[in-house]
Amino acid sequence: MRYRLTIDLGGTDIKAGVVDKDFQIISECTIPTGAGRPFEVVVADMARAAEGAAEAAGLTYTDFVCAGVGVPSTINPHTGLLVFSNNTNWRNVPLREELSKHIPIPVYIGNDANCAVVGEAIAGAAGGKKNVLMLTLGTGVGGGIIYEGRLFVGGDGMGAELGHMILVHDGEMCTCGVRGCFEAYASVTALIRQTRAAMDQHADSIMHDHLARHKKISGRTAFDCAKAGDAAATMVVDQYTDYIAAGLSSLCTVFRPEIVLIGGGISNEGDYLLDPVCQKLPRYVHASDIIGVPPIQAAALGNRAGMIGAAFLDSME
Amino acid sequence: MRYRLTIDLGGTDIKAGVVDKDFQIISECTIPTGAGRPFEVVVADMARAAEGAAEAAGLTYTDFVCAGVGVPSTINPHTGLLVFSNNTNWRNVPLREELSKHIPIPVYIGNDANCAVVGEAIAGAAGGKKNVLMLTLGTGVGGGIIYEGRLFVGGDGMGAELGHMILVHDGEMCTCGVRGCFEAYASVTALIRQTRAAMDQHADSIMHDHLARHKKISGRTAFDCAKAGDAAATMVVDQYTDYIAAGLSSLCTVFRPEIVLIGGGISNEGDYLLDPVCQKLPRYVHASDIIGVPPIQAAALGNRAGMIGAAFLDSME
Repeated sequence: MRYRLTIDLGGTDIKAGVVDKDFQIISECTIPTGAGRPFEVVVADMARAAEGAAEAAGLTYTDFVCAGVGVPSTINPHTGLLVFSNNTNWRNVPLREELSKHIPIPVYIGNDANCAVVGEAIAGAAGGKKNVLMLTLGTGVGGGIIYEGRLFVGGDGMGAELGHMILVHDGEMCTCGVRGCFEAYASVTALIRQTRAAMDQHADSIMHDHLARHKKISGRTAFDCAKAGDAAATMVVDQYTDYIAAGLSSLCTVFRPEIVLIGGGISNEGDYLLDPVCQKLPRYVHASDIIGVPPIQAAALGNRAGMIGAAFLDSME
Repeated sequence: MRYRLTIDLGGTDIKAGVVDKDFQIISECTIPTGAGRPFEVVVADMARAAEGAAEAAGLTYTDFVCAGVGVPSTINPHTGLLVFSNNTNWRNVPLREELSKHIPIPVYIGNDANCAVVGEAIAGAAGGKKNVLMLTLGTGVGGGIIYEGRLFVGGDGMGAELGHMILVHDGEMCTCGVRGCFEAYASVTALIRQTRAAMDQHADSIMHDHLARHKKISGRTAFDCAKAGDAAATMVVDQYTDYIAAGLSSLCTVFRPEIVLIGGGISNEGDYLLDPVCQKLPRYVHASDIIGVPPIQAAALGNRAGMIGAAFLDSME
């Protein structure tokens, strides 16, 4: 009983693994998701992947405390229902119940962003902290919160959609259909839009040379050119990190985490991203002169965070 | 042991009371706060007021489960420290410890806005609900949250400052020194500013007659004149309720309360305030087409909410 099973349901692959008590993934098994297939068939393959991972580690179900599942979906932790998933179009499917037909140990289900913060809070950059906020900046803005040692999911697990708090009332249109979401300013998608707008206004910026060399505008364009001293790129980075700080401030004012983690590919920018956000955050957080602001660090576990976190969902209930 | 003591520390008065098991305040005792006096002296008077209320009800300390205290301050529930209070300028004073020198029963301390939501969730408009959000619209925007049956206060009790989430990045200056806070758009102070701006632009608005009759612009000016059909006043109410809905949406997207309560004098506008907020809320809440939005109601207990809630703080830990 020293091991845990973890299953990550991705758009392309179902990835299962065995996690040991030292938070190491000691075996893995991957099966294609086959998105679009009936729910029950996908779930049977999730169990098959878990069994494959167990076998690869030379273990059987009696060796496991529990199985944890991370899904890119909204989960009701009380009922075990997957309420909706934009990737699979599943609605109100009994994921925990169906998995339990195949897996004879306790099954826990979590949203993948929430699993990631659990992983970082247990074994990563926030190891052992009880109040942790993680933002994942990518195509969108995701994230998760540990509050007083428990995973915070909002009423019936429907909340904690951190990227869809409003940062600019009536501002930029978000992919969710609402104007002004944090995501519409702080995602890498938004950074690329901001980069493009600055390039349109500054024909002399070296960002144009960067584009010619790399064939596309990416989240790195502005950062690379700012490091090289380009004024327009520096303005883009300054504005982008300001948006991150302002959106993050609302979460700090409400949750007061001990530490903030930033994940997603953009966190590879390291201090070039984190330093300006740290510097700007006190301007926006309520009573920061008295209460202070939390330190901000890059997430440490990368893609493993969600796999490890799912395995330990039981410890955050 | 069927009674509870409650103490409300206001800027003008210390008000103590006895609350019975049916949530009724059966006796009260009021002593002037004497703001500016040393902390220990004010605390001694808080205990004196509590004893006065107990005597008035013919009770002694053996009759009470506990004493609950509501203060307009930031409280660390773990340490019992009053961390700061803008009214009294107290910083890091050991309020629970000092009160316990005088009061020989368990003492619980809460921020007054948090006590109000506890009162409404136990005995008021949200009676029995486990996920409750209350906004109090007044000079500022306060509020409180019950999450999964427990009072949500943020890390170390320093959070849940709902009025200071950012609604308009780089927007109107808030009294707290940050630009664009929810409070700077949704407080009654903000409504009065919005009303004045509309009057400046619309010399023909009947809001000018309203001002002449009532001698001042208040939170009622725009509502009264909108009810009478004035176009400029209707626009003010429409914009103001839109700000409330947008700010509230971020809280719904994160907390997913079962019910939202609106308190403060402006809630006397009833459906003229609540109906437009209800109508606009789904536009801003993430995935409202799938998850829905909570109903919005006026708070029911008025000033008693905080007194009753403080008495039951123990039940929300």
